[in-house]
Amino acid sequence: MGTPDYINKIVILGAGSVATHLAIALDKSGYKISQIYSRTSGSAELLSLKINSEYITDLKHLDTDADLYIIALKDSVVECLIRKLFVNGIVVHTSGTLPMAVLKNMSSSYGVFYPLQTFSKSRSISFDHIPVCIEASDPRTLQSIRLVAQNLTDKIFEIDSEQRQYLHLSAVFSCNFSNFMYVVAADILKSRNINFEILIPLIREFLDKVSVMDPWDAQTGPAIRDDGSIISRQLELLDTFPEYKEIYRQITEKIIDRKNKENNP
Amino acid sequence: MGTPDYINKIVILGAGSVATHLAIALDKSGYKISQIYSRTSGSAELLSLKINSEYITDLKHLDTDADLYIIALKDSVVECLIRKLFVNGIVVHTSGTLPMAVLKNMSSSYGVFYPLQTFSKSRSISFDHIPVCIEASDPRTLQSIRLVAQNLTDKIFEIDSEQRQYLHLSAVFSCNFSNFMYVVAADILKSRNINFEILIPLIREFLDKVSVMDPWDAQTGPAIRDDGSIISRQLELLDTFPEYKEIYRQITEKIIDRKNKENNP
Repeated sequence: MGTPDYINKIVILGAGSVATHLAIALDKSGYKISQIYSRTSGSAELLSLKINSEYITDLKHLDTDADLYIIALKDSVVECLIRKLFVNGIVVHTSGTLPMAVLKNMSSSYGVFYPLQTFSKSRSISFDHIPVCIEASDPRTLQSIRLVAQNLTDKIFEIDSEQRQYLHLSAVFSCNFSNFMYVVAADILKSRNINFEILIPLIREFLDKVSVMDPWDAQTGPAIRDDGSIISRQLELLDTFPEYKEIYRQITEKIIDRKNKENNP
Repeated sequence: MGTPDYINKIVILGAGSVATHLAIALDKSGYKISQIYSRTSGSAELLSLKINSEYITDLKHLDTDADLYIIALKDSVVECLIRKLFVNGIVVHTSGTLPMAVLKNMSSSYGVFYPLQTFSKSRSISFDHIPVCIEASDPRTLQSIRLVAQNLTDKIFEIDSEQRQYLHLSAVFSCNFSNFMYVVAADILKSRNINFEILIPLIREFLDKVSVMDPWDAQTGPAIRDDGSIISRQLELLDTFPEYKEIYRQITEKIIDRKNKENNP
C-alpha cells in the first residue's frame, strides 16, 4: 500500500463552493474525480453531473481505491468524519483553520490543500494564479500534493498549521474587514443618494498600490496626517451613524499610534 | 467681465500631488497653464518645467487674466488665501471637505473641482476614468467647469458641498481604513515570515466582487457566519497583537449586529 506517488483518481468530500471550484478545476486538469460525497444530495448531484462523476451520501459507499481524498467540508463536519473515515490514499483538507493533525487517524498519508481564495458558486474563477498552501505528514506525501497543486496554479506556498492560522486571521482583516469598510462607505453614501460605484476607481488604485508597495507606505488620509480638524469634523458627521463612530475613532487612533511608534521607537 | 463660457487659460495654485497630476492632465488636453503658484519654489519650479509654464511664489505676480484658477492646496492654506485672492475668472478648489462657499469672496464665479482619487507624485495615473465631482455658484459656471472636466474624464458627478463631506468620509472608510486592514494583515503575516503578496489575489477578488455587487452581499468570513469557535480562536491568536485585538472584536461585533438587524428589522 503506502502513498501513491502520482495522483490519478480523486474523491471529493463536500459539494459547497470550495469543493465545486476545486472539482471542476481538477477535472479540467485531467484528473479522474470518481466520487463526490455530501450528506445531502442536491449540490452533490449537480456537481457530479458537471464533471461526469458519481455522488454518494453515505460513506459506506465510498470508493476505497482513490489516490487522494479531498475533504472540503465545514470545520465542524470535518471533525465529525474523524472516527468514520479510514483510507489507504492520501487525505487532505482545505481548511484555513484546522490543524493538519486532525486527519492523522484517517490515513498514514495526510496533509492540507488550502486554496487562499473566496469562492461563490455563482462566480466562475480561474485557478491559475490562486495561491494554494500545502502541508503534509511526510516529504513523499508533500511531493504528491505539490504535483496536484502544480497542475492547478503557479502559486504554491508551503505553510505549516500554525502559520496557516495566522494566514487565515490576516485574510479576515484584509478581506472580510476591509470589505466591511466598503459596507460602511456604501451605507454612508446611500444616505446621501450617492452610488457606491463612485468609489471603485479610488479603491482600485489603493489595491494597485499595495500590490507593489508595503501597505503602510501606501497609507494616506486624515489619520496618518494627524489632521485633527478633519477628524473632528468627520466624527461630527458620524453622529448620524452612531454604529460606525466607534470604528472610526478606534482605527484612526491605531493609525496615529502606529505612526508615533514608528517615529519614536 | 463675468464668467468666460469657454476656459482657455488656467492658473494652478499649488504644486503638490493633486496640483501636479491635474496640471499635467490639463496641459495634455490642450489647456494653457499660464502659471503655477506655490509659497515655496521647489515643486512649483519642477512642475512649471514639465508643462512649460511659469511659476510664482508671490500672489502679487498673479496672472489676473486667466479664465480659471484651480486651488489645489491644503485646506488650511486655502483658508489663508481668502483675504488675498480676488480675480475675475472662475475660482475652484479641489478639496473633499471644504464647502464651496469658502471661495465666495474671491470671485463672482466659483465652484469645486474634486477629483476622487489618491495621487502620489511618483505614480503616474491616467485621468480618463477618475471620478470628478463638480459644484458651482451658478449654472453658467457649472457648465464651464463641466466642459473642463469632460476633457479629462468620462466620470463626472454633480455633488453638493454637504454630499461631498459624506463622500470624503466614505472614502476614508473604504480606502484609508481598508488599507489599514492590509497593514494589520501584513504585520501579522510578517511575524510568521509570510509575505503579504500571498493575499493579493484574494483581495483582488473581493474588489472585483464589489465592482458588480453590493458590498454587504459580498461579505464573507467568520463574523457574518457568526462562527463562534473560529472567532474565539482568532481572538486568542491576537493575544500576541493586543493593539489589533479590539479592532477585531469591534468589527466582528458590527458585522454580527448588522446581520441581526437585517434578519430582525
